[in-house]
This record gives sequence, structure tokens and C-alpha cells, in this order.
Amino acid sequence: MMNAFVKKDRKYGGSYEKIPIPEPSDGEVLIKIKSTAICGTDIHIYAWNAWAQANIKKVPLIMGHEFVGEVVETGPGCRLLKVNDVVSGETHIPCGQCYQCRNGTPHICFNLELPGVHRNGSFAEYMTYPEACLVKLPPSIPVEYGALMEPLGVGVSAVENAQVSGGNVVVIGSGPIGLGIISTAQAMGAGTITALDISEYRLGLASKCGACYTINPSKTDPAAFIGEKTRKVGADVIFDASGNPAAIAGAFKYLRKGGSVHLLGLPSAPTSIDLAPDVIFKEATIHGYHGRKMFQTWTRMIALLESKKIDLDPMISHRMPLSEAERAFEMLEKGEDASKILLVPGD
Amino acid sequence: MMNAFVKKDRKYGGSYEKIPIPEPSDGEVLIKIKSTAICGTDIHIYAWNAWAQANIKKVPLIMGHEFVGEVVETGPGCRLLKVNDVVSGETHIPCGQCYQCRNGTPHICFNLELPGVHRNGSFAEYMTYPEACLVKLPPSIPVEYGALMEPLGVGVSAVENAQVSGGNVVVIGSGPIGLGIISTAQAMGAGTITALDISEYRLGLASKCGACYTINPSKTDPAAFIGEKTRKVGADVIFDASGNPAAIAGAFKYLRKGGSVHLLGLPSAPTSIDLAPDVIFKEATIHGYHGRKMFQTWTRMIALLESKKIDLDPMISHRMPLSEAERAFEMLEKGEDASKILLVPGD
Amino acid sequence: MMNAFVKKDRKYGGSYEKIPIPEPSDGEVLIKIKSTAICGTDIHIYAWNAWAQANIKKVPLIMGHEFVGEVVETGPGCRLLKVNDVVSGETHIPCGQCYQCRNGTPHICFNLELPGVHRNGSFAEYMTYPEACLVKLPPSIPVEYGALMEPLGVGVSAVENAQVSGGNVVVIGSGPIGLGIISTAQAMGAGTITALDISEYRLGLASKCGACYTINPSKTDPAAFIGEKTRKVGADVIFDASGNPAAIAGAFKYLRKGGSVHLLGLPSAPTSIDLAPDVIFKEATIHGYHGRKMFQTWTRMIALLESKKIDLDPMISHRMPLSEAERAFEMLEKGEDASKILLVPGD
Amino acid sequence: MMNAFVKKDRKYGGSYEKIPIPEPSDGEVLIKIKSTAICGTDIHIYAWNAWAQANIKKVPLIMGHEFVGEVVETGPGCRLLKVNDVVSGETHIPCGQCYQCRNGTPHICFNLELPGVHRNGSFAEYMTYPEACLVKLPPSIPVEYGALMEPLGVGVSAVENAQVSGGNVVVIGSGPIGLGIISTAQAMGAGTITALDISEYRLGLASKCGACYTINPSKTDPAAFIGEKTRKVGADVIFDASGNPAAIAGAFKYLRKGGSVHLLGLPSAPTSIDLAPDVIFKEATIHGYHGRKMFQTWTRMIALLESKKIDLDPMISHRMPLSEAERAFEMLEKGEDASKILLVPGD
Repeated sequence: MMNAFVKKDRKYGGSYEKIPIPEPSDGEVLIKIKSTAICGTDIHIYAWNAWAQANIKKVPLIMGHEFVGEVVETGPGCRLLKVNDVVSGETHIPCGQCYQCRNGTPHICFNLELPGVHRNGSFAEYMTYPEACLVKLPPSIPVEYGALMEPLGVGVSAVENAQVSGGNVVVIGSGPIGLGIISTAQAMGAGTITALDISEYRLGLASKCGACYTINPSKTDPAAFIGEKTRKVGADVIFDASGNPAAIAGAFKYLRKGGSVHLLGLPSAPTSIDLAPDVIFKEATIHGYHGRKMFQTWTRMIALLESKKIDLDPMISHRMPLSEAERAFEMLEKGEDASKILLVPGD
Repeated sequence: MMNAFVKKDRKYGGSYEKIPIPEPSDGEVLIKIKSTAICGTDIHIYAWNAWAQANIKKVPLIMGHEFVGEVVETGPGCRLLKVNDVVSGETHIPCGQCYQCRNGTPHICFNLELPGVHRNGSFAEYMTYPEACLVKLPPSIPVEYGALMEPLGVGVSAVENAQVSGGNVVVIGSGPIGLGIISTAQAMGAGTITALDISEYRLGLASKCGACYTINPSKTDPAAFIGEKTRKVGADVIFDASGNPAAIAGAFKYLRKGGSVHLLGLPSAPTSIDLAPDVIFKEATIHGYHGRKMFQTWTRMIALLESKKIDLDPMISHRMPLSEAERAFEMLEKGEDASKILLVPGD
Repeated sequence: MMNAFVKKDRKYGGSYEKIPIPEPSDGEVLIKIKSTAICGTDIHIYAWNAWAQANIKKVPLIMGHEFVGEVVETGPGCRLLKVNDVVSGETHIPCGQCYQCRNGTPHICFNLELPGVHRNGSFAEYMTYPEACLVKLPPSIPVEYGALMEPLGVGVSAVENAQVSGGNVVVIGSGPIGLGIISTAQAMGAGTITALDISEYRLGLASKCGACYTINPSKTDPAAFIGEKTRKVGADVIFDASGNPAAIAGAFKYLRKGGSVHLLGLPSAPTSIDLAPDVIFKEATIHGYHGRKMFQTWTRMIALLESKKIDLDPMISHRMPLSEAERAFEMLEKGEDASKILLVPGD
Repeated sequence: MMNAFVKKDRKYGGSYEKIPIPEPSDGEVLIKIKSTAICGTDIHIYAWNAWAQANIKKVPLIMGHEFVGEVVETGPGCRLLKVNDVVSGETHIPCGQCYQCRNGTPHICFNLELPGVHRNGSFAEYMTYPEACLVKLPPSIPVEYGALMEPLGVGVSAVENAQVSGGNVVVIGSGPIGLGIISTAQAMGAGTITALDISEYRLGLASKCGACYTINPSKTDPAAFIGEKTRKVGADVIFDASGNPAAIAGAFKYLRKGGSVHLLGLPSAPTSIDLAPDVIFKEATIHGYHGRKMFQTWTRMIALLESKKIDLDPMISHRMPLSEAERAFEMLEKGEDASKILLVPGD
């Protein structure tokens, strides 16, 4: 038996339970979870909001999908991994058969299965997982960083695509995704990075991750600020990690002609964009990102971590035993100062 | 003295007037206009709508900016062109000094000057123009095609960027810009092209330009149609030449994951886009286009016309003497069946 | 039992033999071969040259790797295909585990396995094959075209990457690979295509596939010809399908500054390139191609065939019963006029 | 009158002379040179080798083309610069009229004019120069860095194109161009950088610029070294700044499948490349670089210098008065330990 943090009923909350240790099926391994992080999706599921009610098909469900662990058993047909390998997990489990999977983009498979949403997740002492979606970590990377590679990776994917070297970069939102973007942008040679957030606590973390300027848009007008810093040229590359429709629409006002906007935060409502002046006359480009290229993004990310060009310490605000998951969710729901909270099973 | 179609006063309409023939300044040539076409921008100026009132700084102004002509005089300092050269004109006259001009994107210069808007245009027997913004046409291209290369070019720029070969392409709006996109997409190897318009007349032209399917969205649901034709995969590439916010927002519903939307039509109001499902989860890309690369797009376009891969005849619906410009504007304002109307001076 | 054309011994030649029908393993299907084509690699194996002696590890071996067939049985674990599906085959069978496979480029896997080289091939009535490397063909494509998609695909991959629309294109070598490049380049909007070959027969086929100009370099100097046709600018894009070192080295002399050279033909000796004037001062780019992207290239190719933008008929010079394979190899070895020879089993 | 270092006669050497201060023509400014650097091209001209004899059309000629200076006078028609502006110079003076200039690639103009080769250069107290080829430097960049931006820029152009972030990078040759590549690659997020040179002195500078590993190929086999460091995968990106044909040919042996080779060093003889195994089966890409994009590369480079991501100090080995130019050339000809030598006029 093992301990796990579980959504038991189709209602608010979660509970710490004893559950049987699962067994790996064909092509799966059994992982002993070393550290697992809380993501915004987990908060939706905990809070049992409309999205969670529509997307969670069956309970009880072990929550969680950002994790690092050690392989303790390999199921039949495994060829890549061995017992004792330290692994982080790609949470987009592709079907392997659809158009996207057969055309080089399995990370946006039509039939994605996610742990902690469609199958049991990582808020547990053990989890089974398809070997093909795991990435072995070299010993030079601190183990707990493995629990942050899934959220970091979406930023790495975006920053690599955005071509930031020597550019004036703006990052809207300095939560964990925003911090990962900032860290990656400085590693890839951004000229200047301006971070935006309404929390001074988060802006402090943004500075630690490499932001040159931090501004609170409730106090400082971003368009005026960027205009001044770029001699009226505008920002070359803007990343949104806030999901705030007004912030996204406003970003186009300080985007340079020919610049690009990269969307990672999920707006909960449609966003009204003034396409003629803001996109068409500007020849702007807008890119959405959902996940990480398998596994090109992981390969790049591991190299950046190994060469210490990215430091994830500023992103980790708390380490708590898995048994205290409920308290962690409360903190996040109340909006207390926190960035990534790592849950550690078995303590 | 010469004849010209002029916006004389800051109010509705235009008039056919006698005006002195202009003289070329430094780096300019004098062109005898052979053919000149009416664009949507001209209709705004004729109608004297809000956009025109805000953007037209001085009258009287010779209208028109899509043209072909023959060089009849070269001003001081000209080095590229000679008398008798047949030329079409790039209507984005860049300043040569701003960030955009100094970084390889003069077509989206911060200080663009346009004929027929900021300086005298082409609805005249003669026009002076900067040599550096003219493109000499080879004799194998029918002369009047030269008057359509400016609007065709914005489509060539978009289609080339969009990578359509072997893809399922949708073109929203089958006016002149849409027809240029269709022609170019078939020339560049699109797998299928579906054209949308609410005018059956325009859909007929779309077929002539190379559309495989034409649908009237007031009768057929585009999302259902594209879903069926692509076995639920969705369109790879969508071009909007309608500027209709609802059509643009709707296009994302039938876009393939990983697909791209290319915006050329100018919406007169903001467009509400559901970014989370339609752009972010789809990893979609959105591109705006304003003009043509100088002169890479022109080079490609001339080659496509010379090799007869693009036929512009279906795009030309009327040829009228310049003296009848007023009647042409009336036709277009009333929405009579028309595509491009060419005005021919001196007849 | 079935008939097959087999390399029985480690020496020159091949023989038509009775062999047991194979059984599909896990993830494999059994295909009834409809048509199978002879490739240069097969000629090396037939002739038992140095390359063949080094690369063929075990005999007897059924030769052949370009094929189309019908699924007649599905092995355990198959999920994509059904009995009666018509399929063509990707001949690069990737290992699924190496760096290349895990980073989006399985077609250049470190451990590629090829039918007719490392495992039994398609010169037979039946063949087993991994389901994951087969592509189902729609009924609108003539079945025998399926046997040509593997060689066509390498050209599609190259032409798509090369960006030919509106460009001046040169194709060196008008054998089957060259003809596929020509067909694809015209489908994707090349401005002009100049085909080179020393065989007048092949140049005739090049014209049928869409070449605008055909020149025999033993009679006409390509550099002078291209110089004249491009007003001394040079070719934008050059494809080599000849594998001739002197022709490749010479191509750089008529390449435009900023142009690109795409290598598909396999030189049997090193090629001496004058890098300073021909690559560095020209800012030229050189690309090698080995195979087709899985399966992005196949998706594009099927769409081009379905929309009839590519016609493969000029590429097929002979259709012969499989029992006459020996005669077919003789023809090719003697250099008789031939392009692709299709072998049809069971006739 | 002013002092200048001049090639007076068509023979070996150069001399320090009194010469009239030139006057700026239309569109030119007069620059007071602050610092000017010696490039390999200057050594060829000094040594009067075959290349110099073929390319230098008229003497006497003021040598030198890498410089920084202050505008002291603006000629007629100047619009971009003002007196007292500190400027570095793009040495590729394009004609503005050829195919390359009219298609977005003026830096590889067909009729390039270079200072110190085709017109008087920068080894002088004053030089006239076209305003359009000068770049104004912000005060945050140390003035003497301006003399190194031309050679640095060719590396910035290459590294930006090569996409090094998270990759295993090899730089062959650790002279000034190689050091610029190393500095830029580390600034743009390279995972590992291995520098090669046969001079221990230069390898020491490579380490200072950011190389992780330095190897002397006369002692250590690069293929074995890279194979071990990349777990037999091979290098992702290789830059050649040596111009050594054997080193270039050998680089393909340790290049990863799908990797790219970037050529900046100028081989004096043709290079024999085994295209089948090394380029075609590997799907490798080869790029040549000649100069810097105008002025996109300069914009990026200035931002990297302003944000202190690139430190040019290790590249500067000597600062000498212009009057001692002859001694500087002697040092370089003898192969004494030196990297960039800056000549300072007026001391």
C-alpha cells in the first residue's frame, strides 16, 4: 500500500489516502516519486471548478502531473529505461496514431491523455507511467529540478521558437511559467527582459531569474515604460504567462512592428484584439504553446540545466510533505506569497 | 496639363480635373500611367469615411495607388530606370532611416508614405514617383497586369510565408485580395483550396482562379464542410481576406492543431478570439500582412507571372476610361458585381 | 509458398525462387505486393559491388524496397491498418530509441533497418512489414504510383525545404529521383526549371515532368546557359540527383549569391569544393537529404498526387512480371533507355 | 594634413605617411578614427600576396577597414548622423542597385566596395565614409569595442543563424573570428562549447571567452573527444574559423546526423568532402557566411554588448600607436602570440 493525495468525490477538495501500489502494464515502468509540484490545473481540480467538472471523467483519481522519480520496476516490453534511473515525465501522453502523432507533433496529439486528469497522477509514493514519455536525467541536475521541468519546458519551447537573442523581451506574469520564460530568455541571450506582475513578491523572483526591469502594471503603464526603454521602437518579443485578456490585448500596443507575441497563459474568456492596427499593419505574429516538443525541447532544456545557464532555485518557494498537500492548496487558494510548491512523498 | 481624378474638398466624392503635369524631383521619374486600379482604400477616400477624414491631411489630392506605366522622364540622380521602361509601383514608400528601414523591413517602415493618401496618386495621366520604389516589368507580362501587382503581392507575400504546398487551404473572402491568394496558393502547390464568400459572383471567380471548393457561409457551415473534407483534421492554412471579425473568430474552429491563420483583410472593429482553445491548445500561429517584401516578393511574383503559373484575367472585371471614375466608384459603392476595375487614362 | 527474387549467394546476380510466405510478428502486417520498383541500391546488390559486400550481412535475402501492396493479414498489436488497405512503405525503419528517434528525426535514426538490405524485401508476392512504417493510400491515387512514392518522397522532402516558388531552379540528373524533383518543383511553383542530363532520352522525360529547359552538359555549358537565362544573377536553387562530383563542384559556379544546393545523388568519391569563392563569399547553403520526414513528407506527397499536381506516368518506363526481374536488371546494367521499371508479382 | 598607414607601391609592406585630410562627398561623413584593428585581409595586402595583387586595383591606398571613430563633419545630404556621434562601420558598401541589394541581401551585393581594398581605409587619423554604412554606438559600449564589431559581427550572424541554444557546439580555430563565435555562442545559450586550436595561447583566450573545453588537435583527436562528450551522438553545430581544408573535412566525421557546419574561415585551396556519408546520409547542412546582415546583425550585436553578455576584452591583445603599424604587422607575420591588435591614431 502507499499514500496518495486523491480527488475522491466529484466535489471541492482532496484527501490523503492509503491506496494499493499500482503495477506497470506493457511499456510502462513503476516510479517511486521523489518530488511532485502543484500546477494551476491541480488547483482547478481541487477547487472543482467548471473546467474540472467537465474534464475529470472518473473518480477516485490521484491528482498531480509534475514529478521526478526513480524507476523501481520495468514492465513488459520496456527497452529504454532501467531500475534506478532518475526520470522526469512528459505529461502529454500521445496516442501514436492520429494525424498529429503521425506528422511530427505528438505533443499536440488529438487524443492526449494526462496524468492527474485522465489517469492516476503523481501526488503519490508510486506511479506507473509509459516509458516512452519519460526522460532520464543526468546526475549533474539536482533531482528536485526534475519536478519543474514540465512547466519549465513550455517556456523553453516558446523562448526557443521566439528568437530572443539581442532582443527587447517582455514577460507578462511572473508566476512559475513566467519565471521559467525569464530564466530561459536570459540564457538564450535576450538583450533586455522586462517582467510584469501585480505582486511585488513575484517581481522580486523575476529579478532573481534574470529580469532587467520589473514593473507593476497597476502602478506603471507598460506601454509608456517600454516605449521609453526602446526609444519608441517597441518590444521585439512579448510572452504572456498571465492569461489576462486585457493584458494580452494591451501588449500589442507596445509591440514593435514585425514583432511577435507568444501565448502560454490560459485566458478564461475570449480576448478582444484590434487586429487591423495591432496585428495586420504591424505584421505581427502570434504563437500559442501547449506543451513541449517531444523530446527536442527536453534535450535543449537538460543541456541548459547541465551547463547551469538556468537556475531553478528562485522558482521553488516551498517544500512540503505530501501529507500536507491540503495546506499547500489552501495557501495557493488564498494567494499567499508562493511560487512553486514541491510536495515530497513518504516524509 | 493633364487629366486626373481628384479629391478636391474634404467631403464625399471626387472629380475629373485638368491639372499641371508634375516634374520629377531628385531620384524620381515621371510615369505615363497606362492603367490604374481601384482599391478599397480609394473607396474609403471617395466616401470620405472616418478613416479617410483622419488620414488624408491635405487636399486637393490625386487619388489612386495601384498602377502600371511607362517612364517618360528621369529626374536628377536616377540610376535604375530608363525612359520607355514599363514599371509597376511599390506603394509603401519607406523613409530609409527608421528602425524598420535599417533592419531589413522597409515595407513596414514607421513613416510610410503612400501615393493617393499622403502624396499625389495614380488616377492621372502622369505621376512622379521615387525610382527606388518602382519595379521594371519584362515584356512577357501583359502590361495591364502591372496595375494588379500591388494587391496581388500582399497575397504572394502571405502565401509564400504560409507554406501551403500539399496543404488544405481555406481563403475567406473572394474579392481581389482573396482571388490573388487563391491564384498564388494553387501556383505554390496547395493540396485543396476552399474559397468562402457570400457573393455567388465572387465564388465563380474563385473557381476560375483555382479554388477546388467554393462555399457560401450563409448557406453552408464552413466548420462542418472543412471537417468533412479533412476527415476531422481541420484546415492546415487559413487566409482571411474578408476583414470580417465573426468569420475570423470562426475560422479557428476549423483550423487544424498546429495550423496557421493569415490575416490580410482589415476588420473595422476588434475581433474576439477564444485564445485558450483556439490558439494555445492548438499551438496555432497567426500572422498579419501589410504589403510586400521589398523586393523579394516582387521578384517571386514576376517569376510566377512570367511562367504563367498565375493568370490575372479572372480578377479584372471592368476596364473603364479614367474620365468615368465616378461611375466606377458608384458601381462599387452599390455592390454591383465587380472585381477589379481598371481605369485607363487618356481614352 | 510464394515466388520471390532472391540474392541467394554472396556473389553477382539474383534468382527467382519459391519461398515460404512469411508471418507477421508483433506490430507487423502481411502485405500482398501489387507492384515493386527497382532502385539504384538494388542494382548495387545485384551487381554485388563493394558497397553491397560491406552492407549485406546475411543471405539468402529477398531484394527490393520500393513497393505498393494490399494488407492481407494484421499481426498482433496492430491498430492503424486493416485488411484490404492499400499501402506504400517508408523504407527507413527506425529503432525508436536512439537520439534521432527521440528528437523528431526518426528518418535518420542511428540504427535504420531497410527492407531488401537488412531484412527481406519487396521483390516477392508477399512481405511482412511494421505497420508503423506503412502509409495507407486513398483510392484516388493510381495503385502503382504507390511503388514510386519512396523515391518521389526524397525529392518532395528536398523541394519543400528548398523553397522554390518563383525561383530559377536547376536539376542535375534526370533519372527517377531527378524526375521526381522536377515534378515536385513545378507543382510547388518554380519559376523556371532547367534539367541536365547526358542522355537525350532522359531529357525528354524531364520535359514531360515540367522542365522548361533541358540541356546536355556534354554539349552545352551549364554555367553559360544559366548565366544567360538569369541575366548573370545565377540559379536560386540547385538540386543534384546525379551524384557526379564534377557536376556538383561545377554547380556552385552558376549558383546565385545567397542560393542553395541540395544533394540527393550519392557520389562514390569525395567531391572537391572551392569553399571560399563558392560557398563562403556566396553565403551559399548546402543540404543533404536521406529519406523522407515521417510522415510529414508523405502527407504532403499524397495531397500533391490526389490533387493531380504531380503526374508520375512519365517516370514509369516499363512494367514487367517479377519473374523477369533478371532481364530488367540486365537492361539497367547495360544502360538501355529506361526510367523506373515496375516489377509485378504473380503475373 | 593627417598621418596614415599606406600601401604606396605594388609590393611588400606599408609606410606611415602625411596625407591631406579627405572631404566628405554626398551622403558621406568625415570620421576621426579612434581605434582601428588589423584583419587577416590587411596582412594579405601588407604581404602583397597573390590575392592582394589580383584585388588591389590602385595605389597609393590607405589600408584598414575595422574601425571606430567620431563624426567630425557631415557631407551634403546626410540625414542619419550628427557631429560627435561615435560610429562603427559596416565594411560592405553595397551598390544599392543589383539583384542582391534589391532583394534584401545588400551585404552580399554583386558590386561590394570595401575600404582598405577598393577605397581609402581606416589606418589614418581621418576617413570619409557613407553615412548609410555607419552604425551609431550608445555610450554604454566601450569605444574601442567599436573597432571589433565588424569581425565580431560575422560570428554573431553565423551563431544566430545556427541555433545553438542547448546544443553541443564546436569552434575550429580560436583566432579573433573564432573567439567572437565562442563569445556569441555562450551568450546565446550553447550547452557546451569545444574550442580547437593548435596554439595554446589562443586556447587560453578561448576559455576566457566561454569555451567549456579546449583541445589541441595536434595532441587530441577531436572526433574521439566529441564522441565521448556527446555519448557518440556527435556535435550539433560546428563553426569553422580556421579555413583549414583538412579540419573542415574532418569536422563532418564528428557532426551529429541532422547537424550543421558553418563556414567563416577562408580556405586557400579546394576542400575535399565525402558528401555521401558526411552530408547526404547525415542530412547535414552547410552554411557560408560573408559579412553581417544590414543592419539586423548590428542591432543584435549592440544589444548583446550593451547587456554585457559579450565581453570583448579577451580578444584585444595589443593596443599600439598607428605610427607603429609596421611593427604590428611584423608580429603577426612572425606568428607571435597575439589576438586582435588595435592601432590608435594620433598618439
